[in-house]
Amino acid sequence: MSRAVVAAMVAYTLELREAGMKLNQNESPFDVPADFKRALFDRVAERPWNRYPDFESTPLREALAREYGLAPENILTGNGSNELLAAAIGTFVGPGTEVIVPRPTFTLYEKLVTVAGGTVIPLELDPRSGILPVPKATPNSVIILCSPNNPTGGVLASLEPLLETGAIVLYDRAYGDFAFDSLPPLNDRLVVFSTFSKAWGLAGLRVGWLATTATTAREIRKVKLPYSLNIVSETAAVLALERRDVRDRFVTLVASERERMAAMMRQIESIEVFPSQANFIAFRTRASRPIFEALCARGILIRDISSYPGLTNCLRVSVGSPAENDAFLAALEEIA
Amino acid sequence: MSRAVVAAMVAYTLELREAGMKLNQNESPFDVPADFKRALFDRVAERPWNRYPDFESTPLREALAREYGLAPENILTGNGSNELLAAAIGTFVGPGTEVIVPRPTFTLYEKLVTVAGGTVIPLELDPRSGILPVPKATPNSVIILCSPNNPTGGVLASLEPLLETGAIVLYDRAYGDFAFDSLPPLNDRLVVFSTFSKAWGLAGLRVGWLATTATTAREIRKVKLPYSLNIVSETAAVLALERRDVRDRFVTLVASERERMAAMMRQIESIEVFPSQANFIAFRTRASRPIFEALCARGILIRDISSYPGLTNCLRVSVGSPAENDAFLAALEEIA
Repeated sequence: MSRAVVAAMVAYTLELREAGMKLNQNESPFDVPADFKRALFDRVAERPWNRYPDFESTPLREALAREYGLAPENILTGNGSNELLAAAIGTFVGPGTEVIVPRPTFTLYEKLVTVAGGTVIPLELDPRSGILPVPKATPNSVIILCSPNNPTGGVLASLEPLLETGAIVLYDRAYGDFAFDSLPPLNDRLVVFSTFSKAWGLAGLRVGWLATTATTAREIRKVKLPYSLNIVSETAAVLALERRDVRDRFVTLVASERERMAAMMRQIESIEVFPSQANFIAFRTRASRPIFEALCARGILIRDISSYPGLTNCLRVSVGSPAENDAFLAALEEIA
Repeated sequence: MSRAVVAAMVAYTLELREAGMKLNQNESPFDVPADFKRALFDRVAERPWNRYPDFESTPLREALAREYGLAPENILTGNGSNELLAAAIGTFVGPGTEVIVPRPTFTLYEKLVTVAGGTVIPLELDPRSGILPVPKATPNSVIILCSPNNPTGGVLASLEPLLETGAIVLYDRAYGDFAFDSLPPLNDRLVVFSTFSKAWGLAGLRVGWLATTATTAREIRKVKLPYSLNIVSETAAVLALERRDVRDRFVTLVASERERMAAMMRQIESIEVFPSQANFIAFRTRASRPIFEALCARGILIRDISSYPGLTNCLRVSVGSPAENDAFLAALEEIA
């Protein structure tokens, strides 16, 4: 009934577990301040909810443009960056397009390429190196990659060699703030995806954005649906940009906690820790499932990534609050 | 650079005008009550905004299931029903699939079919009949239609003949409440799309949903992105369902105002009014652009639909508040 490529697919799912400490989705461990919520409510209550939101979230695109030194025409906003990735893939990937995707990486990329009819060319990566490999590509290829890479944590050393291939590069910097990266110079063949879900701590609001040249943004905008953000999520992102200090303090804390956790995890003999510039740490164990379950039994939910290609017996833990990280480290020392 | 089908496309746009009376987007003229906004804020403030929303909006799917006598497995929610239409088209339409789409209708359908690589087979309709024609289709076809049809207002007499063709039927009932329709019986080859943007008066929140069998919902769910609703829009829709009386009163008012407007418009000799079961009325004039502009000059913004196939010199007005409708009718009598 459904198309053959869809019938053959397996739905994206997430193992749902109740846990006191939720270190499985790379979220911020801190809720936004109560005064942030109140300020948002005050702004949103004044607006008419019966009216469609702004067609292309222009107030937010203007605020992002100011913050990142761009023009609003360089920016598209989406209901999470996933929506924008789907639109960009719909713009550049058709039946037969070769799409280079690192393995292992965020599973959504391959799913979206499959729906678009493209052919995935996997680029094997070694999570121990901490540096993503540079693929061989041609101007007819599309390259999708995430730096820092999810779920392994490694980063791209430089975008230059990728751009020199002439391929279209879809560059997901969802975790980029934790690596203290910066937005690369715009290029017609480069699209950069960012999100408010991680460093900005607004996963519950679903706001993502992309940056590229006005020319390329115009093409992607043809494929993307309008009205991606509702009046609340758009206003929340504008408000977040006015309080950048909240993000900056959080990012500093995450980087410091990540290094502390990695150093302590490296002391555990049975564990191999992969270098990470993100707000999570992937590691190889002797037997991942018993460790995952034993942590769950202690109320600590992390992510079992052992079924990803090349990640046998691997787990991933999000950097939580210092107290959560302490609890995780103590439990891991005991269990692993 | 972009795919040939995308490069050939024109972006979906909306003519933006400032106007005191906004009768161009088929929105509710009434903002939700202040106590609704307060109740929503109270519920949402308690939730952690740093955490992802429910993967598949289960609380809302459960509430919809109770309201419409379905099971949660029959329902998918989306960031507006547009997102769900895109997912359903991605599920059933691939390169070469024949997709029957009425003309004129909501322009988004053809755009989404084009992106998916499908072939649009137009089904010409006469807006004067008030009844949508039944296409000739085969089990390999997909039929997309909207009843009441946007922008003309006519309805489908019966779904049966469409289902008997064996085609996949994507049935958009965005305006169905205004026709006092009911959700048809579920069928593997039928997907019904509904929205909170029109009769429920929540266009600013972006919530849509679809109903189909669990089997078909599973297929579409493979293509759809997760986390479509944020914590605010999901909670708003749940709250709206608890206050169904607001919708019911509004729908009754719209139906009564629509008949009043149509009757008065029919008195104007130079105008031909098309039968409508929606919250808007389409009509043919002697010269649409001067009328559109003259209404704008009086602060009344309606929709110029004269560039749609078969709708030369036609305009569309949304049913507004009684005062807005009075102002529109008085101006039209004077201008037309």
